Amino acid sequence: MPSNVLDKFRSLISELPLIDKSSASAAATRDAVLTKPAGALGRLEDLAVWMSGWQGKHPPTYASPQVVVFAGNHGVCDQGISAFPRDVTVQMVANFQNGGAAINQLADAFGASFSVLPLSLESPTLDFTKGPAMSEEECCEALQSGWNSVRQNTDLLVVGEMGIGNTTIAAAVSAAVFGGSGADWAGPGTGLSMEGIQKKAAVIDAGLSLHADILGDPILVLQHLGGREIAAMVGAILAARHNKTPVILDGFVVGAAAAILKKANSSALDHCVAGHMSAEPGHELLLRHLEKEPLLTLRMRLGEGSGAALALGIIKGAIATHNGMASFSDAGVSAESSS
Amino acid sequence: MPSNVLDKFRSLISELPLIDKSSASAAATRDAVLTKPAGALGRLEDLAVWMSGWQGKHPPTYASPQVVVFAGNHGVCDQGISAFPRDVTVQMVANFQNGGAAINQLADAFGASFSVLPLSLESPTLDFTKGPAMSEEECCEALQSGWNSVRQNTDLLVVGEMGIGNTTIAAAVSAAVFGGSGADWAGPGTGLSMEGIQKKAAVIDAGLSLHADILGDPILVLQHLGGREIAAMVGAILAARHNKTPVILDGFVVGAAAAILKKANSSALDHCVAGHMSAEPGHELLLRHLEKEPLLTLRMRLGEGSGAALALGIIKGAIATHNGMASFSDAGVSAESSS
Repeated sequence: MPSNVLDKFRSLISELPLIDKSSASAAATRDAVLTKPAGALGRLEDLAVWMSGWQGKHPPTYASPQVVVFAGNHGVCDQGISAFPRDVTVQMVANFQNGGAAINQLADAFGASFSVLPLSLESPTLDFTKGPAMSEEECCEALQSGWNSVRQNTDLLVVGEMGIGNTTIAAAVSAAVFGGSGADWAGPGTGLSMEGIQKKAAVIDAGLSLHADILGDPILVLQHLGGREIAAMVGAILAARHNKTPVILDGFVVGAAAAILKKANSSALDHCVAGHMSAEPGHELLLRHLEKEPLLTLRMRLGEGSGAALALGIIKGAIATHNGMASFSDAGVSAESSS
Repeated sequence: MPSNVLDKFRSLISELPLIDKSSASAAATRDAVLTKPAGALGRLEDLAVWMSGWQGKHPPTYASPQVVVFAGNHGVCDQGISAFPRDVTVQMVANFQNGGAAINQLADAFGASFSVLPLSLESPTLDFTKGPAMSEEECCEALQSGWNSVRQNTDLLVVGEMGIGNTTIAAAVSAAVFGGSGADWAGPGTGLSMEGIQKKAAVIDAGLSLHADILGDPILVLQHLGGREIAAMVGAILAARHNKTPVILDGFVVGAAAAILKKANSSALDHCVAGHMSAEPGHELLLRHLEKEPLLTLRMRLGEGSGAALALGIIKGAIATHNGMASFSDAGVSAESSS
């Protein structure tokens, strides 16, 4: 069965629905007659057209945004690559469930539903310097969990993550998918020293070396170097694509999930926008490989989906202006002169 | 009387209330114990401390944000420096009053009150290449209108503007205050051609030349080269400072009002944050002179306060996280280890 499930995901990644050109075109037509100089709302105008196209309807809506956070634990923490102990993953899941984390406040501020999905936290993945992080079955389960977590009726999805050690995982996955060594992708995460970062880079290099023969296959990279929360995000981003739900990507760890999809199918992220650029140094490089320009650059580096959730406000503004503004003719405003 | 009024404003600019250090300190203390790695919310953390300090209370609030748009008309339009006819100012004021403009949707999206104040639109200011744009009395009236427009109970202010031709005014004021020629500060505004921009630069240079003897006094610059909406924004930003109300600055034209205050008192903008960087080219240079790092860079160039109103969402997120998050001890989350 696991093999069949992985094959199913491979098919879902290779056979992607495309943008609805007629909805996008209806949005562009409306945009052109709104009471503003052409293009004066900048990226808000592009976002309204993009939302319409990927939602497959015009006008686009901002009615039921969903934030879902996936939590995983990582065997590679045994190598001492994080400033926080692994227990914090379970503790933060309780904090999410009690409404006390940053992401709870941000989801609430922008009218999004929130849920957290802990993924077998009591059984961390295997240390990737010793063997494959996950069995094929574990990887499939996590993909399926992510796929199932996306609500059918959501019109905008934010995926986020929590997992002590997972910037090491994300760096290893990024290096595997886009090339480079541990030093190119390792950063301070939650607060490592320079010495800690060097150790982290060496751990990543060890993983890349051990799994050298599978690095050409992004799905095998996910299984061998990834983690459950990253697999779940792959599943969720993919489910959103098949559900006509645009996605806001968060920071470095979400970017690693996106990297798996991008490598498997270069158009797999066309329904995604980058919510922000994280202060985690590898994220800038990752965004270049993902070909995404971030909406926000506010030196955030928390994860949890927090940067993407803050960017919900930008999309909310884009939809509000697109849907609510008067046209030149409605408002009796003179159009541009020929001067 | 006008002289006395101008003198009153000069005093109000030179004698500014300072940040409430104890409120800012209370915010910093709380920030340090919230469930996140230190600094991981980036600029959101700085914004929460800044809001607390300038509101003079802890916790800071996002309860009654106010957006006010000032509209003015400009004699310099006779020189053919705008892509739109001057009638559009009155037409857009009606659009604001009817709720059809971009700023109406954005204010509404982020829970802000909205008002528009048309300033003697039937009597444009004098063409500044022919003489002083405003009499001392006209300038005082506009300053006073802006001052009076700020509600006592607002906890965050956005000032915006509408006025065909006012990027020419803003460029002239910026050049007068910070140096440089028309070519350094003139841009396309609502959509000028390259030829139009060159003409605009020449018009600015003519104004700078005619008023060369008053360029050292920012209040006289406001009167001789400014416009009513710019004077009103000077009054409003200043009133906010005296009312313990932080301000979000918008784009290039708001930046010119801010420039007057900055030149008159280098700490006059400490209660202001730059909401965004406009696509109008002069704004990047202006922000450097104002020593402000923008919150958003989304290629917007509409004015109306639209970029600042979109940034309301960022401040809303900053306040929501600061006020709503659990502390490490409340949530039973382990703090950073020494590794």
